[in-house]
Amino acid sequence: MIHLTPAELIAIKRDGGALSNQMIDDVVSGITDMSLSDAQVGAFAMAVRIRGMNIDETVQLTDAMRRSGTSITWNLDGPVVDKHSTGGVGDTVSLMLAPMLAACGAYVPMISGRGLGHTGGTCDKMESIPGYTTTPPREQFQNIVRDVGCAVIGQTNDLAPADKRLYSIRDVTATVESIPLICSSILSKKLASGTNVLAMNVTTGGGAFMAKLEDAKALAQTITSVAQGAGVRCHSLVTDMDQPLGSAAGNAIEVQYALDYFQGVREPRMHEVVLALGALVLVDAGLAKDDADAKQKLEASLTSGAALEKFARMIAALGGPTDFCESSTKYLVSAPVIREITAQRTGWIESVGAKEIGMSVVVLGGGRTQPGAPVDWRVGVNGIPSVGDKVESSTVIARVHAASEVEAEIAEKRIRAAISISESHVDPRQVLIA
Amino acid sequence: MIHLTPAELIAIKRDGGALSNQMIDDVVSGITDMSLSDAQVGAFAMAVRIRGMNIDETVQLTDAMRRSGTSITWNLDGPVVDKHSTGGVGDTVSLMLAPMLAACGAYVPMISGRGLGHTGGTCDKMESIPGYTTTPPREQFQNIVRDVGCAVIGQTNDLAPADKRLYSIRDVTATVESIPLICSSILSKKLASGTNVLAMNVTTGGGAFMAKLEDAKALAQTITSVAQGAGVRCHSLVTDMDQPLGSAAGNAIEVQYALDYFQGVREPRMHEVVLALGALVLVDAGLAKDDADAKQKLEASLTSGAALEKFARMIAALGGPTDFCESSTKYLVSAPVIREITAQRTGWIESVGAKEIGMSVVVLGGGRTQPGAPVDWRVGVNGIPSVGDKVESSTVIARVHAASEVEAEIAEKRIRAAISISESHVDPRQVLIA
Repeated sequence: MIHLTPAELIAIKRDGGALSNQMIDDVVSGITDMSLSDAQVGAFAMAVRIRGMNIDETVQLTDAMRRSGTSITWNLDGPVVDKHSTGGVGDTVSLMLAPMLAACGAYVPMISGRGLGHTGGTCDKMESIPGYTTTPPREQFQNIVRDVGCAVIGQTNDLAPADKRLYSIRDVTATVESIPLICSSILSKKLASGTNVLAMNVTTGGGAFMAKLEDAKALAQTITSVAQGAGVRCHSLVTDMDQPLGSAAGNAIEVQYALDYFQGVREPRMHEVVLALGALVLVDAGLAKDDADAKQKLEASLTSGAALEKFARMIAALGGPTDFCESSTKYLVSAPVIREITAQRTGWIESVGAKEIGMSVVVLGGGRTQPGAPVDWRVGVNGIPSVGDKVESSTVIARVHAASEVEAEIAEKRIRAAISISESHVDPRQVLIA
Repeated sequence: MIHLTPAELIAIKRDGGALSNQMIDDVVSGITDMSLSDAQVGAFAMAVRIRGMNIDETVQLTDAMRRSGTSITWNLDGPVVDKHSTGGVGDTVSLMLAPMLAACGAYVPMISGRGLGHTGGTCDKMESIPGYTTTPPREQFQNIVRDVGCAVIGQTNDLAPADKRLYSIRDVTATVESIPLICSSILSKKLASGTNVLAMNVTTGGGAFMAKLEDAKALAQTITSVAQGAGVRCHSLVTDMDQPLGSAAGNAIEVQYALDYFQGVREPRMHEVVLALGALVLVDAGLAKDDADAKQKLEASLTSGAALEKFARMIAALGGPTDFCESSTKYLVSAPVIREITAQRTGWIESVGAKEIGMSVVVLGGGRTQPGAPVDWRVGVNGIPSVGDKVESSTVIARVHAASEVEAEIAEKRIRAAISISESHVDPRQVLIA
């Protein structure tokens, strides 16, 4: 087998050629063992970003990245399932769906990401619970999934290490928005985590990485094909992230939002996405016979309290308080300043910029602009309206949770700029797009 | 002035946009002060390689790279001139032309490159002369140019340091062959060296970086425009590098070839290129009234011995032997093995692969595959025929100068494969193409 030099491999993609399986394996080996320099990885990522990859290349890239580290093997008496979102603002779906799916008989080893830029990260949200660890030893993680049914943790170094290096380079080289690179990044980790079933939420609109609908659809299609090619039962939804999904954005604030959801406060847009994604998983997992049956089972997991119980057990097993769900306000630290923002005019909510709302959380200290930076779990925004809501001048259109009056002031300006109010009637936006 | 982040700047070029002067300055500053990571420089180079740059961008990139270091100011009583080749095999032009131009009244501060891959480097060739230094202190370099008229030295760290970093990254990321990047790399150093007149030899064919004629013509056109835009009187020739320019390739071997040239052994192809480039310089420098006058002056510099005297004085001034030109065989170390390769059939030389001849010098140890690697000055090939030459079976078509019989054997195979002989008549190739 002839192995080309890194520059020769990069040149093939530079000129728009397709890389063979061997070539892709060589690139990924070079990313993993550092024999490709940072400059070469940056140039390769740019060549892929501009020239693209066909499905065969994307399948091979995904598989090679999975093989760059260890893979988890599960020996469980039910299906191993997962759900993933390409990111957004006020997207608390994972917090609810992991326990709900566990309550329905699935095993959910959910390896979640951190917030970056305007998007929140499930891993950060869970860490706002005192004592909760997102980095348990592998054995403990596997035991919790087996005993409780779900465990939401953070990235580990041993799953798909090639992705870790490639992603850190893509992040600073304008090569994030690439369908084959996004697809392989997501799926290499999911395949390594041993999941059998995956539901993908590909977001679109101003607050999504794939702002354009056609790009989001193409990404959804690619992820589904590649996952299915790798033997994972996978379906994807494209959902609206032009406005925040839920009315709350921030870390502790979204954990409280999830608790409220379990306890009956379910916003229709959020509930629709939770049920749609959950139903895809349950049907693919063979735990429901069809969409209607799946949704009934998911609703039952909420009304019976079974999902909340799973959530509580997971938190306790990962080091959080044993009475967290009953006494969350005792544990989730509040921000010192809470400022209510009123509409100051009458009309209908015309738009709520998800990216701008996300950035207001960042400026409050609840997000990060650099990987690895600390976040303030207390801060954020809730009470955010939806497009189409009728407001009076006294209607609260956001509650800012801030570390200080100064920061509340800055965030208020951003939030006001993010929300536009029309004098004439505006229809609500569909949340499920494709 | 708003400064974009590196990723934002890269994204503009990634998407095919044109960068403003400020943006290009920011990129070059980031390359120079290391605030752009290697990955970012690699991604930027790939984006430029694929998307290109317009003339305004190329002018600005060249100027920003020049400004990344110091520039030499000359206070001389004649024009400061230079000649540059985009690289090749058996291309000894600089060794002859620097002293010839000096003999005609020009000042020639020639900062030359090292060999890499199949191409030779003037700097390496000069270093095969015992005692000769290619890294004199700045003041000594300037004094030699003033006193002798010419000085051939190597790259310095203070002229266009941005190019040094960018080039080392391009070399391993398949981003060398890019007209704006080649142009800015060459001209930034030439502008920093304070030249007023420049003749460019843009090579084309199998042994050139720009293998395709149309690319070579485009590069020649771009370099001429950008140099003229920067106030340098510049003309470019496109010459054939499908076969080696001269009949000798190797370091000490090419120095001896240059001495032979001064002493009357002038191969027609080589002589044609030397005179053509030299005439462009003399006319642009105001040292000759037209092409015919210039060529007469150049010929006179050879027949009078003035050029050889300049060569001898330059060598002595830079630390070489004072009697080098009279006693070169005493100083240039011979290879222990010299093997003659005969044609073994009758016919006409149909092709002599310049790249393959260059690579045979590399495998003999006379070139390098990694920047900074040492070279064996003794080895190489001479007696190489030209396309169109009539050969008998006993005609010597190459003399291999090798460190050992084993290496001579390997080189012989490569050289035989590089030279094809036709049974029917073959016309010589034109060396001056455009």
